Amino acid sequence: MSPVVGIVMGSDSDWPVMEAAAKALDEFEIAYEVDVVSAHRMPREMITYGEQAADRGLKAIIAGAGGAAHLPGMLASVTPLPVIGVPVPLKYLDGMDSLLSIVQMPAGVPVATVSVAGARNAGLLAARMLAAHDEELLGRMREFQQELNDQATEKGKRLRA
Amino acid sequence: MSPVVGIVMGSDSDWPVMEAAAKALDEFEIAYEVDVVSAHRMPREMITYGEQAADRGLKAIIAGAGGAAHLPGMLASVTPLPVIGVPVPLKYLDGMDSLLSIVQMPAGVPVATVSVAGARNAGLLAARMLAAHDEELLGRMREFQQELNDQATEKGKRLRA
Amino acid sequence: MSPVVGIVMGSDSDWPVMEAAAKALDEFEIAYEVDVVSAHRMPREMITYGEQAADRGLKAIIAGAGGAAHLPGMLASVTPLPVIGVPVPLKYLDGMDSLLSIVQMPAGVPVATVSVAGARNAGLLAARMLAAHDEELLGRMREFQQELNDQATEKGKRLRA
Amino acid sequence: MSPVVGIVMGSDSDWPVMEAAAKALDEFEIAYEVDVVSAHRMPREMITYGEQAADRGLKAIIAGAGGAAHLPGMLASVTPLPVIGVPVPLKYLDGMDSLLSIVQMPAGVPVATVSVAGARNAGLLAARMLAAHDEELLGRMREFQQELNDQATEKGKRLRA
Amino acid sequence: MSPVVGIVMGSDSDWPVMEAAAKALDEFEIAYEVDVVSAHRMPREMITYGEQAADRGLKAIIAGAGGAAHLPGMLASVTPLPVIGVPVPLKYLDGMDSLLSIVQMPAGVPVATVSVAGARNAGLLAARMLAAHDEELLGRMREFQQELNDQATEKGKRLRA
Amino acid sequence: MSPVVGIVMGSDSDWPVMEAAAKALDEFEIAYEVDVVSAHRMPREMITYGEQAADRGLKAIIAGAGGAAHLPGMLASVTPLPVIGVPVPLKYLDGMDSLLSIVQMPAGVPVATVSVAGARNAGLLAARMLAAHDEELLGRMREFQQELNDQATEKGKRLRA
Amino acid sequence: MSPVVGIVMGSDSDWPVMEAAAKALDEFEIAYEVDVVSAHRMPREMITYGEQAADRGLKAIIAGAGGAAHLPGMLASVTPLPVIGVPVPLKYLDGMDSLLSIVQMPAGVPVATVSVAGARNAGLLAARMLAAHDEELLGRMREFQQELNDQATEKGKRLRA
Amino acid sequence: MSPVVGIVMGSDSDWPVMEAAAKALDEFEIAYEVDVVSAHRMPREMITYGEQAADRGLKAIIAGAGGAAHLPGMLASVTPLPVIGVPVPLKYLDGMDSLLSIVQMPAGVPVATVSVAGARNAGLLAARMLAAHDEELLGRMREFQQELNDQATEKGKRLRA
Repeated sequence: MSPVVGIVMGSDSDWPVMEAAAKALDEFEIAYEVDVVSAHRMPREMITYGEQAADRGLKAIIAGAGGAAHLPGMLASVTPLPVIGVPVPLKYLDGMDSLLSIVQMPAGVPVATVSVAGARNAGLLAARMLAAHDEELLGRMREFQQELNDQATEKGKRLRA
Repeated sequence: MSPVVGIVMGSDSDWPVMEAAAKALDEFEIAYEVDVVSAHRMPREMITYGEQAADRGLKAIIAGAGGAAHLPGMLASVTPLPVIGVPVPLKYLDGMDSLLSIVQMPAGVPVATVSVAGARNAGLLAARMLAAHDEELLGRMREFQQELNDQATEKGKRLRA
Repeated sequence: MSPVVGIVMGSDSDWPVMEAAAKALDEFEIAYEVDVVSAHRMPREMITYGEQAADRGLKAIIAGAGGAAHLPGMLASVTPLPVIGVPVPLKYLDGMDSLLSIVQMPAGVPVATVSVAGARNAGLLAARMLAAHDEELLGRMREFQQELNDQATEKGKRLRA
Repeated sequence: MSPVVGIVMGSDSDWPVMEAAAKALDEFEIAYEVDVVSAHRMPREMITYGEQAADRGLKAIIAGAGGAAHLPGMLASVTPLPVIGVPVPLKYLDGMDSLLSIVQMPAGVPVATVSVAGARNAGLLAARMLAAHDEELLGRMREFQQELNDQATEKGKRLRA
Repeated sequence: MSPVVGIVMGSDSDWPVMEAAAKALDEFEIAYEVDVVSAHRMPREMITYGEQAADRGLKAIIAGAGGAAHLPGMLASVTPLPVIGVPVPLKYLDGMDSLLSIVQMPAGVPVATVSVAGARNAGLLAARMLAAHDEELLGRMREFQQELNDQATEKGKRLRA
Repeated sequence: MSPVVGIVMGSDSDWPVMEAAAKALDEFEIAYEVDVVSAHRMPREMITYGEQAADRGLKAIIAGAGGAAHLPGMLASVTPLPVIGVPVPLKYLDGMDSLLSIVQMPAGVPVATVSVAGARNAGLLAARMLAAHDEELLGRMREFQQELNDQATEKGKRLRA
Repeated sequence: MSPVVGIVMGSDSDWPVMEAAAKALDEFEIAYEVDVVSAHRMPREMITYGEQAADRGLKAIIAGAGGAAHLPGMLASVTPLPVIGVPVPLKYLDGMDSLLSIVQMPAGVPVATVSVAGARNAGLLAARMLAAHDEELLGRMREFQQELNDQATEKGKRLRA
Repeated sequence: MSPVVGIVMGSDSDWPVMEAAAKALDEFEIAYEVDVVSAHRMPREMITYGEQAADRGLKAIIAGAGGAAHLPGMLASVTPLPVIGVPVPLKYLDGMDSLLSIVQMPAGVPVATVSVAGARNAGLLAARMLAAHDEELLGRMREFQQELNDQATEKGKRLRA
């Protein structure tokens, strides 16, 4: 199955955070690809990646980066696809630099930003984007939401006991 | 034409900020609806809005809110659609409270967050989500990106002169 | 004895923080109930919980949540009772997101916010609310304050020695 | 009618912010008193005010202060009543100093903190505390919440039109 | 020798931070006293402590507190002596709450604030205040500054080697 | 009368903020001098100023600076006198940069920091330092504190009326 | 004279801030060019600009950008020249987002960051970089520093008078 | 080979952070010197160091400091050379105080600031400054950038596998 979501990050050191995006897509059986595409170390390849993404069949890109996190915004500038940005926290500043570097994009070039280290939600957001155009996937998302509900209900039961 | 994007906000006082989302959708001739759906003042109606959104044909929801901004996250909890959150700045704190209240969602319930007062990008992000499944719209998004390029190029010319 | 305070939280992972609220109520022999009521995973049940709280005899609700913490504010929107919000700190941002998401409520829907991880004070605040209408409890609160004084005095003695 | 809520502030310059608390209590026909009680300029009188508040029939104290805002916390240390703190913003720092100085109270001495400049919600919170013990007032609070709902619904109608 | 500096703190749990103030005064052979004086748990005793400090022969007070840190400011409101505030960091927020609660005092009631956990500098600041009126102590402060210089010079030598 | 307090600032543009320090000293009839002593534009003269301050009879230095505010800390490194730092706010960041640049001094070199733009308190703090060694001035400081009390009491009367 | 410094910005709306860099270079008679080079609207042209900068004879690039400010960092990734970043403040957040987006670059790709809106210092920094390799320019920089000193000295005289 | 870059820091405790600057210069075979030059403990020697730097043949100074970090700015005030500032993080505040103390320099005295603890980039920035005037070094910087690219490409390969 050809990948419909691209998960990219500036360095493989971001993988422990970004892995959760892949896992979320696995749960929905959505095909994805994973790659290192560094805005700062591979700027030309990064631009090529973004330019070709739509033509290669991707429907969304998930990009994680930390500190002066330029990858999500730069990809958004060269692809017409929705780009989801994951602020990866560095050793200092708790990811506030990563968050602001990703979310505060200028008018014209949006990045769909999730929480600091929120890669799982990045995967789920990509799944929702696809589900909006896929009744079967939409149904699965509703089931997933019901499961969240069931789990929380179960936790409540245990806590009350 | 039936609306495919819902633009909602907690109060009509958010409209001066949120209007830019509508305008962006207009530019792409995407049908949308606009409503006041307050998480805090109309919680039950807000939940109903979210629950019915997908069945009514919406493909994405854009929600703006300020301060302890709960509308985007609450909608995301009751719809399987992608929800785009716009942090509306209040008189104090420059929208930092709005931003964190929207972007820091727990795992399981994503909100695609844009910049403080970034409603135009919310509209463009919705357009990209649709464009990923609509070749014609994808082409228009590419044209739009080219226009941004042309305008910036033109500005450079004037500045150099 | 029928519970007069409800202690709720978004997940049982908040219990290590929220437990201190229960312990404070125990010290004042105030009956309470404990439950998981997630704004994001159980939105409809959360609303039902809030709507029925007053009729079930509760006089106050203590709600803990972290990150984009919507539980206290959403409960406050569906109950006429005072809601006390406890900002539970997540791994990043030291609870600043939780604090702002809870305290910055819009005019009309108040949440009585305590410090980051300040669940003990949430319990004591509920006790004060009840004590204002219960002479016996008021007396015990004054004794409690005297004990704080005695303990601090004792610490001073030991430090001076 | 004897006052059941005390509204105090460090200086009459806080009145433009704090007035909204009085107005909220007026709407619920709750009797209150207003005074300047400065923690830093009248420390002994401030302590006396707090010590006598419960015996004079008050059921709650609303205290507003800015910057190194010590009034709410100091009152809470000498009264067994619930104290509601309103962070009054100064010229710089947008009230963040006021907020942290009020909300971050040590375990043992709670302050029910509302949003920056959120005096209206302080009044409504006091009303809720009273309503929890007064069926008639509880009913009025429910009506008030319904009115908020009606107004928001009306705003939605106008926006859709 | 009668104490000329009072070192006080809200709880003996602040002692590991505040000890450095005592040690600095020891190095200058300045007599001091140490006590627990809690603004929130011993408000009346705290006020008495401040009121009597000057008459008991103190020339400066060093006060450490954390979170909503009211001790330095409240002491400053009841003594005409200079009060030095030490922001003690709590588990969350890195002492930013403590710092703002101490430094942002209203006009009329100054607190001489040092860095987060900067108790050693609080002791040295008290020593400087005394030295300004004591030629012998002034000389020792100059020697101390020379020693700092010598140590740094020595460190440079070792680093260059 | 020979000056006993030096009020210095990095630029005469700081004077509108710093003037309040001079006015406070005037109220206590404390002799002072005023000068521009820029750490960044006159580093050598700044060091000379600090080195000679004690010998010229000064008992305290008040230094105001904004942004990367180095003047208070640099003076403290070359004088044994107490240095009081006033964080002057710049156009951006609300003085948070000025505050941290002044208050976060390393162990060994204290600066007595007051609030953002808190020059009046800097003057009052210098007056307290002198008063600790001058019974007559101590008496005047107590009168001043009583006047603050009287004014606040009067404001309360007017508000209650 | 061929330009040795490139001043670029994301939009001509940044010019009112960036103009000060040009003026500083004018004072030192350093030849420069000015252009709009947007990382987000002209990504390919931006990369070409950076790639050719050194070969075209530039010795340094000054880049200003606001919000999620990617221009300085992206240029630094494609040129071996030193890049100076100027954080341009947007309407909200006082330039803190711009600052962190520029300064927090990952190891390997440095950006020489100046203060929020500090374009004049960006120009002076470029001048210093050139002066380190140009005795005549070094002399002029020393004269410039002396002039700063003279002006500050003069301001002191006027203030003392 | 005579040193062309000076690496200085306020204390040898900064060496574990600053070492990375030396290592980067080693990689480019750029001669440097290392020293402890404390703005606060050796102010006169610090000024002498800065005044003589250019005459001793240095082309750039790298200065690291933490908290109220004055060393980079003070050196910049006495040398015409470019000064690169490294914000060294202290135990609290994550280096935000260090960053603002270094980057927010007043107009006239620039400091080229790198990221919190970003000493490696400080070394690379110095190398770029030199490379702009040294074709051979410029070539090596380009090779270095290619190596970064190769490594990132390799990481991508491994991740895809």
